[in-house]
Amino acid sequence: MLDLLIKNATVITMEGKGLGIIPNGAVSIKGNKIVEVGKYDSLTYKKAHREIDAENKVVMPGLIDAHIHTGIAILRGLSQDVDNWMEGGLWPFAKALDEQGRIKGSMVNIIEGIKAGTTTFCDYDNPMDKIVENHAAIGSRAVVADTINEMPEKGDIKVGELYPLDPAVGQQKFKNALNLMEKWHGYKDGRIRCLMGPQGPDMMSKELLLEVKEVAKKYNTKIHMHVAQGDREILQMEKRYGKRSIQYLDEIGYLDEMLLAVHLTEATAEETKLVAQRGASMILCSGSIGIIDGIVPPAAEFIKHSERLALGSDQAPGNNCNNMFNEMKFTSILNKCNAKDPKAFPSWEVLKMATINAAKALGMEDEIGSIAPGKKADVIIVDTKSPAMFPALHSPQRNIVPNLVYSASGSEVESVIIDGKVVMEDRKLISVDEKQAVQEGQEAAEKIAKRAEEFYDSMETTLSKKMKEGLL
Amino acid sequence: MLDLLIKNATVITMEGKGLGIIPNGAVSIKGNKIVEVGKYDSLTYKKAHREIDAENKVVMPGLIDAHIHTGIAILRGLSQDVDNWMEGGLWPFAKALDEQGRIKGSMVNIIEGIKAGTTTFCDYDNPMDKIVENHAAIGSRAVVADTINEMPEKGDIKVGELYPLDPAVGQQKFKNALNLMEKWHGYKDGRIRCLMGPQGPDMMSKELLLEVKEVAKKYNTKIHMHVAQGDREILQMEKRYGKRSIQYLDEIGYLDEMLLAVHLTEATAEETKLVAQRGASMILCSGSIGIIDGIVPPAAEFIKHSERLALGSDQAPGNNCNNMFNEMKFTSILNKCNAKDPKAFPSWEVLKMATINAAKALGMEDEIGSIAPGKKADVIIVDTKSPAMFPALHSPQRNIVPNLVYSASGSEVESVIIDGKVVMEDRKLISVDEKQAVQEGQEAAEKIAKRAEEFYDSMETTLSKKMKEGLL
Repeated sequence: MLDLLIKNATVITMEGKGLGIIPNGAVSIKGNKIVEVGKYDSLTYKKAHREIDAENKVVMPGLIDAHIHTGIAILRGLSQDVDNWMEGGLWPFAKALDEQGRIKGSMVNIIEGIKAGTTTFCDYDNPMDKIVENHAAIGSRAVVADTINEMPEKGDIKVGELYPLDPAVGQQKFKNALNLMEKWHGYKDGRIRCLMGPQGPDMMSKELLLEVKEVAKKYNTKIHMHVAQGDREILQMEKRYGKRSIQYLDEIGYLDEMLLAVHLTEATAEETKLVAQRGASMILCSGSIGIIDGIVPPAAEFIKHSERLALGSDQAPGNNCNNMFNEMKFTSILNKCNAKDPKAFPSWEVLKMATINAAKALGMEDEIGSIAPGKKADVIIVDTKSPAMFPALHSPQRNIVPNLVYSASGSEVESVIIDGKVVMEDRKLISVDEKQAVQEGQEAAEKIAKRAEEFYDSMETTLSKKMKEGLL
Repeated sequence: MLDLLIKNATVITMEGKGLGIIPNGAVSIKGNKIVEVGKYDSLTYKKAHREIDAENKVVMPGLIDAHIHTGIAILRGLSQDVDNWMEGGLWPFAKALDEQGRIKGSMVNIIEGIKAGTTTFCDYDNPMDKIVENHAAIGSRAVVADTINEMPEKGDIKVGELYPLDPAVGQQKFKNALNLMEKWHGYKDGRIRCLMGPQGPDMMSKELLLEVKEVAKKYNTKIHMHVAQGDREILQMEKRYGKRSIQYLDEIGYLDEMLLAVHLTEATAEETKLVAQRGASMILCSGSIGIIDGIVPPAAEFIKHSERLALGSDQAPGNNCNNMFNEMKFTSILNKCNAKDPKAFPSWEVLKMATINAAKALGMEDEIGSIAPGKKADVIIVDTKSPAMFPALHSPQRNIVPNLVYSASGSEVESVIIDGKVVMEDRKLISVDEKQAVQEGQEAAEKIAKRAEEFYDSMETTLSKKMKEGLL
């Protein structure tokens, strides 16, 4: 007996050379796995505890958000339209951020992602041992990393100054990451996995980076790290080591298949090619880097050499949303405009970047990223009767994929199934109370704001001035 | 007695030097006009037939979509990721497009816009005398133009060939536009207004352009026209007249305050400056031109010289959505990346482009674009308890405006009031049945698709090949 049978759907499997689209298709699920996918008549098993009639709907793999900081979501909208996003906008406020704010904000952020069709979150933040409990409770698939760095408390670092590094801070964070790994790696048949998450080559010593690598080898996990993430990082690297990030990482043996290189904002074409050729993956955060830097990262160069490219929504204080439909659309259009070529980054390629290619980038292509027998049952159901998906045509030209990538905003996602469980149905979260989560998050945010009132105005940031001018 | 009083809201009036934000504000409405706006205690009149408690909500002017072709929405998703968008993708399908398809598709498209907070639609299509009935029925504010050109039936024009122009076609379309003007201009106390809409300087003779101008003068309306909308147009102009569009328009007396110049995709900095200095408005369609051309139009140059810049969602076959939240976000980020400057096109400026500056561009700033006593009551209510707007902070730094521009997708719009009437409430359309409109539209689309089946495959377009490869 199957647990769930979804039928009459347009199934986009993301299997095979094309996208593996099956009109009037069906997907069967038992436990946390996909049993079969195909035309209804071709299925071996048809009896299920529950059937979903998905007529006029698309069934597709859940989207993979390969880089998200849910712990700072509570600072959404507090740093954009400024130079020096981190020093000029984020850090002043982050001084008032507390653990409760990180945890409560994270929950709302995960809800935001699920409501927009994200089923896998590569969550990169701290305190991850607390944040991960949100993923456990809500039912999301999570690949988590507790951020490791040697940075003293934030907030007082001026633009251009070399950061002080504190090995004691590093060791404490490293220990936290190890504890996380021991406690959570493999939780619920692998629904939650852990990675090592050094924050960046500029934010810690070579020694600590190498310690991190040994742990990653021991657990056979990837290393999730910001690389060449901005001119700030490059400046730090040149001041500290006299070389740029990628050369440094190559020299210390960090450029290999274990590396998930996030951003590559400042990577040259040569450097990007090297990252790809060494077998590392690229995680591209188009919306975030577009807003906070005004830059289109070199993904076009990367995909000449590797398909291991995934998309990430990054963070709410500067993106300002965590929505993979938003990332797909921005990834395509920003790269079209960068190349001055409307054929660049077509819808079908971008859909791969949010599903099967993301799974490959994470080394999880045996588990997620497509709808195939034996894979984990992470699927989303999208309503094609929503005006933004109207009309739905299959012949003589199918328009479903372009409309998913260029028109849908995420609110067309009707139901979300993760690890075989219905986590959202008819846009209602099942395992958590959305309204309560937002209310608790709002209260936590107001406490942070109250603490920030004590020092924020005197800092006279770019945005506080704009507020005085009545523009914010 | 007031008709409607909205209270406890964060009101973004878009009045004054800043954005005129009033926390805990109230807006009162009688008939189709705003009576007062301010702190609740300051209101002269408080008794109303209906009150809306807008706690945790933003009340702001309805968004203005200054350029939309609702009549081709039914071809959504059928032309993108290709060179020569018009000849290569749109026109092959447009051969099968019928009047019923245009009208039914238009209705769904208007619903899409309203659900994303659009209250004014500058609709530019034909048959406008039929399409306008959708606006009349649903309750939208519409500034309509029946497209005028001298183009024979579409579909067989090869890339690079000079179009044949047919004066008989032009006279018929000119007559249709005149009839529209006489019948609809000023309908319902001006809720529907008409403009003249020559399709472009390349698609009609100078004589007809000058006739159009005379009519616009007579009715004291603007002229809504594509200008320098692509390399296709420039090529036609150079072949036919030996000069580029903007020089030609200046020579025939078309560059003045009456002109709404749509796109300017191919305008040089000098040409853009000339358009601005002559007093014409620019209508910028960031999403559409990004997808179909891979180009960021020269809005940054335009706003150095004029604030009369409005945003438009253009058309569903190539944008692929008609959503002003999408346009605001793309306008900002594309221009940031074009300028490599995260400070470019900040959220507060972009919000003006979708409201008060759009109204100025259309010459309607006495009626719409801000919340002020005596203006038409076009306001939207946005839920800040939606995860994408979370959290909502007012002190020490307000984050509402950046989150509206960079995070909201449009689905956060809860209610829409146009001309004093509630047109959508709690995301439910009041005056039309959304489900039925989509159903009727889908049926009309399938008829078009059936007709297209007869010839489409043999045309072997770029996209039909991609479908054969399983990518679409």
